[in-house]
Amino acid sequence: MKILDNPAKDTWKKHLARPVFKTKEINKIVKPILRKVKRNGDKALLKFALEYDHVELDSLFPSEQEIQAASAAISAELKDAINVAKTNIERFHMAQATPELVDEVMPGVVCRRKSVPIQKVGLYIPGGTAPLFSTVLMLGIPAVLAGCKEIVLCTPPNKEGKIHPAILYTANLIGINKIVKVGGAQAIAAMTFGTDSVPKVDKIFGPGNQFVTAAKQTATKYGVAIDMPAGPSEVLVYADDTAIPAFVAADLLSQAEHGVDSQVILVTDSEKFAQRVIKEIDAQLEDLPRKDLAKKALSNSRAVIIDEMETALELINFYAPEHLIISVEKEDEAVAGIYNAGSVFVGNFTPESAGDYASGTNHTLPTYGYARNYSGVSLDSFLKKMTYQKISPEGLKNLGPTIEVMAENELLQAHKNAVTIRLKHLKNQKK
Amino acid sequence: MKILDNPAKDTWKKHLARPVFKTKEINKIVKPILRKVKRNGDKALLKFALEYDHVELDSLFPSEQEIQAASAAISAELKDAINVAKTNIERFHMAQATPELVDEVMPGVVCRRKSVPIQKVGLYIPGGTAPLFSTVLMLGIPAVLAGCKEIVLCTPPNKEGKIHPAILYTANLIGINKIVKVGGAQAIAAMTFGTDSVPKVDKIFGPGNQFVTAAKQTATKYGVAIDMPAGPSEVLVYADDTAIPAFVAADLLSQAEHGVDSQVILVTDSEKFAQRVIKEIDAQLEDLPRKDLAKKALSNSRAVIIDEMETALELINFYAPEHLIISVEKEDEAVAGIYNAGSVFVGNFTPESAGDYASGTNHTLPTYGYARNYSGVSLDSFLKKMTYQKISPEGLKNLGPTIEVMAENELLQAHKNAVTIRLKHLKNQKK
Repeated sequence: MKILDNPAKDTWKKHLARPVFKTKEINKIVKPILRKVKRNGDKALLKFALEYDHVELDSLFPSEQEIQAASAAISAELKDAINVAKTNIERFHMAQATPELVDEVMPGVVCRRKSVPIQKVGLYIPGGTAPLFSTVLMLGIPAVLAGCKEIVLCTPPNKEGKIHPAILYTANLIGINKIVKVGGAQAIAAMTFGTDSVPKVDKIFGPGNQFVTAAKQTATKYGVAIDMPAGPSEVLVYADDTAIPAFVAADLLSQAEHGVDSQVILVTDSEKFAQRVIKEIDAQLEDLPRKDLAKKALSNSRAVIIDEMETALELINFYAPEHLIISVEKEDEAVAGIYNAGSVFVGNFTPESAGDYASGTNHTLPTYGYARNYSGVSLDSFLKKMTYQKISPEGLKNLGPTIEVMAENELLQAHKNAVTIRLKHLKNQKK
Repeated sequence: MKILDNPAKDTWKKHLARPVFKTKEINKIVKPILRKVKRNGDKALLKFALEYDHVELDSLFPSEQEIQAASAAISAELKDAINVAKTNIERFHMAQATPELVDEVMPGVVCRRKSVPIQKVGLYIPGGTAPLFSTVLMLGIPAVLAGCKEIVLCTPPNKEGKIHPAILYTANLIGINKIVKVGGAQAIAAMTFGTDSVPKVDKIFGPGNQFVTAAKQTATKYGVAIDMPAGPSEVLVYADDTAIPAFVAADLLSQAEHGVDSQVILVTDSEKFAQRVIKEIDAQLEDLPRKDLAKKALSNSRAVIIDEMETALELINFYAPEHLIISVEKEDEAVAGIYNAGSVFVGNFTPESAGDYASGTNHTLPTYGYARNYSGVSLDSFLKKMTYQKISPEGLKNLGPTIEVMAENELLQAHKNAVTIRLKHLKNQKK
């Protein structure tokens, strides 16, 4: 972990640069996958399962027996834990619902705004190095709460052609029953174009590797929406002497173990503190099963010493971290000064993993600096807001002349006529 | 206007197809513009003003004198109209604000969710055939209400190097004082990369021609967010015998006059009614200054006869119109059955132009079928929702074991450790 001592502002961009991806090369692989799935549907999916997942599938769906077996394979302890997380996530996402807005803006002119579920949504759950059943909760719960009509979950099969039991159990628990054994860019393609087994959806959610990310980006050219642009996961810890080095080290490591391109940044006002954290990292690292991944991620990470809180906050907002842990004495001041971050973890006893799993907030958050202009996934991500207006004859008499003048001045005569013809009609009626 | 009589469902896609754009050719023009602005900044902007707007600009900013003159050039009548619209739009967008959500999901685990303004936003207002000062209201008002720190408005100069006085007046009225004389793809490029005169922004809003749309799409590759993907404006009118043919004709024409690729669709249960609307269109068309545009748009338009309301609603949801006017006897039933539309105009006295200008709803709406998965612009479009969590030692004792079990089962040991190390610390403290 490299230490930077009060770096000049014009060097921040360089020092805090995120990894750059070879999108061209990735797209060269992804585009033919999309094309093949579009053309050959399920056939292509089965072929890709053989090629990438190394399994010959009889069916793209898990059998009823596989679902039952999954439930039996999960320990009571894990079931309890999933239930606690589910309860918290449901509660905090349910609380995000907004009532219908009805407002008579002037006499006879009533405007409304209402949340309407996006009808068909697709959730992608990666396979790979960790069975992310927590992501099933984070995407599935708001989708179900929003009332999406069709929810499909795609996740790759393992070499035995099975889906990880925890993923299957969790999906089943929250009421998602359209589960398809397909992973990677081909899963995104299937949800974009539709196949016999996979419905074409309106919006695709979920994390994934660079191929999945590239496929999602390309999918947007075909009318599908996506949750957000993605990059590797990242955490920034802002800590001072009141923080506990071992805790900070553990938090940094919990991000570093995600993958070699994970971003881990410590901002602190004390070099001595940074040194103690680094020492703790070295000690804790040794016992981690994923220590090789973590080590590589740490080699790109930075400890930035910044004396003044104002400058530190400026740097944090500049970086716009996905996860921000704040563990400083003037905690309230620091929290209030942050406007670019995905989710904020406050105090010594709020590890990032709380939000990753079970506090109730969503763990699908904007990475790669997108915390500047995107929100994390929430109930809203599965809803559209539609507006309505209804104007009475009286209302049109009140508002009509305003519309006529504005339309005329925008040189849009037909826009004006649509009002004029109605006002004339009302005038003639009176006679 | 072609009449389709109860078309089979599998032909809807063909019959209701929207225009396809030659994106490749457009991108060939747009990409070099972006590159040049990125490289040469303001110099490139001045050069493009000469090339595309046919004017040699001394400054990219309007002078104080030009702003004063704009106010003097606007009639009192128009000022009043703009004021009424402003009041309604402010009122309805202000009402969209959501209070901060604070929830103690379990003892000692407090989650929060708060709206935070996107810091820097760019508004694009097209020049061209109509001076869209209404769009200044629709984008500027929520940007100001949201509290965006920096708001820049780009709009092309006319041949005299001036900005249309109504645009300048309106921007000034609502408190936007960073106005730049730059249009087209070069404006989008300037807001994406930043130049000496134009700040680099986090999110770009606003309509535009195919070049602007393509530039916005490309801008997203550089970390900028955009309001929504765009296509030509469109209206679908759903009417029966209780509607007034002259009103329906006026509404269809008000959309048709936007441009040759505008989409205009009538859905009705009565062929006789459709014939009467077509007759009215022909009569009203003759007096329109933009009748050539409207005529061309109408040549691509459709009147679809559908006997059953259920099928009609299905077709409307399939098409997902930007604007939907509902003028049928069973109005409530029809409104309740719609889940894919940008904004809905209900009843005989609610022309689309009411929402275009002054009812209070936003006129920046999803076109091209994106009403399936996007909302129109609202206060939310200028905000991010950030989440926060703070866990007390007691809270971590309650929630920690859940996190530990889940992290362990996802094979993310460091995620577990971040909790374990804290729980151990608390245990040791007790002794």
